[in-house]
Amino acid sequence: MKELMAIEYKNNKLLLIDQRKLPTINEIFECTTYQDVEFAIRDMVVRGAPAIGATAAYGVVLAAKEFKDLERKEFFNNMDKACSILNKARPTAVNLMWAINRMKSVIEQNKEMSVNDVYNNLKDEAHIILNEDIKTNRQMAVHGNEIVPNNAAILTHCNTGALATAGYGTALGVIREAHKSGKNIFVFADETRPRLQGGRLTAWELKQENIPSKLIADSVAATLIRDKKIDLILVGADRIAVNGDTANKIGTFMLSVVAKVYGVPFYIVAPTTTIDFDIDTGEEIEIEERADQEVTHVGGVRVAPEEMDVYNPAFDVTPSENITGIITEKGIVREPYRENILKLK
Amino acid sequence: MKELMAIEYKNNKLLLIDQRKLPTINEIFECTTYQDVEFAIRDMVVRGAPAIGATAAYGVVLAAKEFKDLERKEFFNNMDKACSILNKARPTAVNLMWAINRMKSVIEQNKEMSVNDVYNNLKDEAHIILNEDIKTNRQMAVHGNEIVPNNAAILTHCNTGALATAGYGTALGVIREAHKSGKNIFVFADETRPRLQGGRLTAWELKQENIPSKLIADSVAATLIRDKKIDLILVGADRIAVNGDTANKIGTFMLSVVAKVYGVPFYIVAPTTTIDFDIDTGEEIEIEERADQEVTHVGGVRVAPEEMDVYNPAFDVTPSENITGIITEKGIVREPYRENILKLK
Repeated sequence: MKELMAIEYKNNKLLLIDQRKLPTINEIFECTTYQDVEFAIRDMVVRGAPAIGATAAYGVVLAAKEFKDLERKEFFNNMDKACSILNKARPTAVNLMWAINRMKSVIEQNKEMSVNDVYNNLKDEAHIILNEDIKTNRQMAVHGNEIVPNNAAILTHCNTGALATAGYGTALGVIREAHKSGKNIFVFADETRPRLQGGRLTAWELKQENIPSKLIADSVAATLIRDKKIDLILVGADRIAVNGDTANKIGTFMLSVVAKVYGVPFYIVAPTTTIDFDIDTGEEIEIEERADQEVTHVGGVRVAPEEMDVYNPAFDVTPSENITGIITEKGIVREPYRENILKLK
Repeated sequence: MKELMAIEYKNNKLLLIDQRKLPTINEIFECTTYQDVEFAIRDMVVRGAPAIGATAAYGVVLAAKEFKDLERKEFFNNMDKACSILNKARPTAVNLMWAINRMKSVIEQNKEMSVNDVYNNLKDEAHIILNEDIKTNRQMAVHGNEIVPNNAAILTHCNTGALATAGYGTALGVIREAHKSGKNIFVFADETRPRLQGGRLTAWELKQENIPSKLIADSVAATLIRDKKIDLILVGADRIAVNGDTANKIGTFMLSVVAKVYGVPFYIVAPTTTIDFDIDTGEEIEIEERADQEVTHVGGVRVAPEEMDVYNPAFDVTPSENITGIITEKGIVREPYRENILKLK
């Protein structure tokens, strides 16, 4: 089977699998401008912290393509503006800001070159970011697989697979690796309301790879954890503070509390690009609130009365004391988190 | 505003608000046979432990209406069969078995009467069960309101309102009472996957009563509890064991764990008819597993890939040590639960 690529740059276009429509419709969303890319991130055509980062990098490339025939100064001004717009597409996943900063460094470092050369270097950099992420995921998968017992029942939340990254996945990458290595694992996938990334995307990836699994409503997990039907919890991350506090998809915190009470290992799987060295604790992480319609409607069908108010945070913060370890491409980080995370800087 | 009646017996028909279709369609489901009633309970036209009990009682009435022209012995045989079919419509809510047993006692006690008199007495008994439940709910609401602080933010799960009972509600009855008594409360309603009774039914009742409230995805509750945005959790029950362990809608247990960790009062609101004096602990409660389609489809729209396996338990069991108190029509039961519950027998 051809490996799943959610993000591909081809013929000066960024091609994204439209994740809003999976699993019923498998369609490509074409981006030809950086505004298309900003929309794709904001509207969750593409989602998942590492995937957002790589996508944003190509957004900068598409901006450079558009502006490269402009006068030099205008080019740099427009690039600044484009980076700033892309940077604000979503607030929580730090990989977005990280990727934009990396692209801005290329612009900064190449200010003396011709605009066309800058454009070419930006394109190279975006390719590097994409390829690095795939490599990073493979390394996390290998490190993570070390802590997966044989015959493990693994609980995961949201989608952290090939669709959420440049390829292979973070938490789902570890699951993939454990399955491939013949460990006879079983996966419980939280459906992950309100956007149902677990039911729509993780379930889809699990079926494609024939990994034995069941889908559950999010609130089923607690009983499975108590009843010792879960050996291990693996989730991704959108931003990790220096003290180890981790923002991830809403629902992650709830799992971490129950896991701690019942002594089930709870691991974050995330590349070091998800660490925000500028913030000390999770309290500083901005939590995105999304539209009421994500809760009041499912697949276009209204499921709540009109004018009902909604509180719809997209993420929550799991305190580091609930986290058994953070699996990165450089190895597994454990307590004391601050000390060990700063070593990765 | 006319008080909401989810269950009405009129012109020899049982009229149920079709709760599968709310809030978008407000339609009456007519039952003319006990088989209609069995279907209505099984398919969740009507749901909520006390409502299921009252509905089943009318199912017995409709059976008696059908069989009352039969030969005496045949009447009693057919009634036995009908009771047994109704009794198995759903396995977890003990109010169903309680109501059927009560109707069977009427048959038993009136064995010497004419079949037509038995029928009339059964009809009276069903009306009594319905009216008792309304009265009981009012009493629970008054007792419950005593522990609701002014300006309380209250979290609730599933639907426990007029739709789940003969009228007024259990947990939502307390909320109603607190609101009416001018306590300036605010309600967070869990949407309650997979059947979305919170989003569809509780939200609808809250809007009808103009109770200030917000709807949340189930996994949002944990963060609200930790962040001290919830003062009190009120939920219903489907079956309570003698030791206080309580089966209720899936997701209740998860809330109880987080509430305990963060010190938020967690109350069950249920009539004493929900207590099963025949079982000692929650381990003996049968947990209904429902169809995969409840998770893979929402409002007829497929939201998970085909052939994805699902684990879909409808209820979970909250251990009594996570429960601050059980609000009944006879007052609030607290630890030691076994001792205090047995006093209610």
